[in-house]
Amino acid sequence: MNVAIMGFGVVGSGVAELITKNSDSIMKNSNVSLKVTRILDIRDFPGNPFEGLMTKSFEDILNDDTIDIVVETMGGVKPAFDFVSSCLKKGKHVVSSNKELVATKGYELLQLARENNVNFLFEASVGGGIPIIRPISRCLAGNQISEIAGILNGTSNFILTKMIVDGMSFEQALKLAQDKGYAEKDPTADVEGFDALRKICILASLAFGNHVYPDGIFTEGISKITLDDVAYAESCDSVIKLIAKTKKLQNGKILVMVSPCFIKNDSMLSGVNGVFNACLVRGDATGDVLMYGKGAGKLATASAVVGDVIDCAVNDDKRKFFGWNEPKENMLADYLESETALYIRAEKADKEKINSAFGNIDFLTREGAAEDEIAFITPVMKEGELRNLLDSIGLNVISCIRVADY
Amino acid sequence: MNVAIMGFGVVGSGVAELITKNSDSIMKNSNVSLKVTRILDIRDFPGNPFEGLMTKSFEDILNDDTIDIVVETMGGVKPAFDFVSSCLKKGKHVVSSNKELVATKGYELLQLARENNVNFLFEASVGGGIPIIRPISRCLAGNQISEIAGILNGTSNFILTKMIVDGMSFEQALKLAQDKGYAEKDPTADVEGFDALRKICILASLAFGNHVYPDGIFTEGISKITLDDVAYAESCDSVIKLIAKTKKLQNGKILVMVSPCFIKNDSMLSGVNGVFNACLVRGDATGDVLMYGKGAGKLATASAVVGDVIDCAVNDDKRKFFGWNEPKENMLADYLESETALYIRAEKADKEKINSAFGNIDFLTREGAAEDEIAFITPVMKEGELRNLLDSIGLNVISCIRVADY
Repeated sequence: MNVAIMGFGVVGSGVAELITKNSDSIMKNSNVSLKVTRILDIRDFPGNPFEGLMTKSFEDILNDDTIDIVVETMGGVKPAFDFVSSCLKKGKHVVSSNKELVATKGYELLQLARENNVNFLFEASVGGGIPIIRPISRCLAGNQISEIAGILNGTSNFILTKMIVDGMSFEQALKLAQDKGYAEKDPTADVEGFDALRKICILASLAFGNHVYPDGIFTEGISKITLDDVAYAESCDSVIKLIAKTKKLQNGKILVMVSPCFIKNDSMLSGVNGVFNACLVRGDATGDVLMYGKGAGKLATASAVVGDVIDCAVNDDKRKFFGWNEPKENMLADYLESETALYIRAEKADKEKINSAFGNIDFLTREGAAEDEIAFITPVMKEGELRNLLDSIGLNVISCIRVADY
Repeated sequence: MNVAIMGFGVVGSGVAELITKNSDSIMKNSNVSLKVTRILDIRDFPGNPFEGLMTKSFEDILNDDTIDIVVETMGGVKPAFDFVSSCLKKGKHVVSSNKELVATKGYELLQLARENNVNFLFEASVGGGIPIIRPISRCLAGNQISEIAGILNGTSNFILTKMIVDGMSFEQALKLAQDKGYAEKDPTADVEGFDALRKICILASLAFGNHVYPDGIFTEGISKITLDDVAYAESCDSVIKLIAKTKKLQNGKILVMVSPCFIKNDSMLSGVNGVFNACLVRGDATGDVLMYGKGAGKLATASAVVGDVIDCAVNDDKRKFFGWNEPKENMLADYLESETALYIRAEKADKEKINSAFGNIDFLTREGAAEDEIAFITPVMKEGELRNLLDSIGLNVISCIRVADY
């Protein structure tokens, strides 16, 4: 089957490379013959082995009836959304690695795919080369998923790992990540949690069945984490990780949030270091299942795209009921409604008041702490109630980090 | 669609329970309606909610044309093989959790399924509730898999964890595993590696495309591991795990083996403790991907079965090219051909001779070692060459454990 690629950047060129390089094993394993026949990009690629396939006109793909499957690796919503919509309407399968597109327009595109009896697949949009979307939608289909917690941004995980393992400051670790090409010049999307947010919105939509848009979801990044917090975490056998999570609360509402968390050293998530990603899925039948691997990278991400392309080719004549429904009103929980413990670091605090508010607290210690610094972990309560209690005792809070229970 | 279950033991009853309990969410997520209509077992289950569906006659399932999907959770090869064969020939999809059946008869049954245009699926045969088979066959389809290494037997992993974490002897830990119901009265299949062997044979067949039978594959269990070895592993930042692995060697041959290994503490496999299982898949594009979770248990395993049942129902009219081909002559490598380092513990050894055979060795130390005990890790070489060298210096080897590189 003929495949077109829109966007010849890192991932798109990896897809072209992989389909070409592994065509024999793809034929052997899946009995489909794949060929890249057209590549859309506004740039020129003189001397590139795929140069002869390049076009700058989207119509060359849209109107070419020999193209069955279109790969969208352009990124961004404009013009990707229009291009993908047009391809689906023309009866072409579309495979995307574009988390922004899926997080903001997934429902609309899934609807279009259903109406036109084609596939819209996006395994690569979350966790790069790690199989996450398909295991959740298929292998765990007999389960009721109650919670998903992921380390879904490799850049911020690299920075935190450098802080924890090598004692670098946030600024030093960010600089190193930029030097290594893991972080962009403007690192906001990575370090402030917005990239992880898009991914957890996709997983929440998939797990709970209704589109969760990223707008308005509580998101906290890692830029305020200090080595003092890292030391306090270590003092209670924990590490700090940026966790993107979604959970069905007892009132039926869906909690979605991104924030740094204390993770116990004996949690499988604690050992996920460097640019690696991991995703923990909690099901009523399976218990906890973790999927772990490289969350980014040219060939890792491309391999997820190619897996989807193969799926489209094998199931060319149908793809029923993958995806999710329209968003529901009032389906999302306020994060203040969810139960958690909090790690608190404060200045000039009155231990008596803290003990009277929370019961007897074991205070944390670290080397080099100022005389009047205190740190502790609260009991588990609704976060809103915890914050009210903290306010009521007039603590001068410097750091506040959630404590995870997985 | 109507489902029959053959074998109403732990897993089979879990399947009945899960399909019944989660039928609404299965309908919502996958748009299929599943109903258990017949259950085969030679035992009586008075008072069981599914009592009315029980039969002792296989023909009641085989000849019932309203049954589309048959679940085989009987275990063993006889009569499971005959029953499954008959069902496939009758045009019924079959889902099995039976690793012995798949490892020894997988190719024949996959052929029958192809000839009769039905599905034969067995996600639950490896890793209980952890998605492993489908991610390998689907999500990683664009990859060339080079290696799979798994902790695939929860009982032996529980025993090793108790030895490492709590300092129990093998015998004490085995007794505890039996008391907790993790190990059977005759624990041979678990502790000597035969259970893990069946599972890695299934994964090797899937990853490399030709059936690998368990007969004649090198298999070493954990019954000879002592706390002395555990201490030496700890002295070089490692833990001992029972690893089932398969790898494509440079000469194109497939290595399959089960043996205890030293695993570095910074490997993701090192943190897989207790009855948990994990499977690391190394692909040319994805790098290392790890899937981790509960490897056994009633509902975890049942959920993998139900995932396959849903897949059969969604893809009722076809299932092309899943599985593998007939075994090839001479496709398997001798384990002595593969490269590894070895941990060696010996008595009354001559350090000079060891150094002259292997170059300068860093000897390991542990508290309480006898004066004349030595331990070390060899350089990486073909295992056959290593063993020749060890023989040539006449070492009185007490323990020999492979050192993994992941």
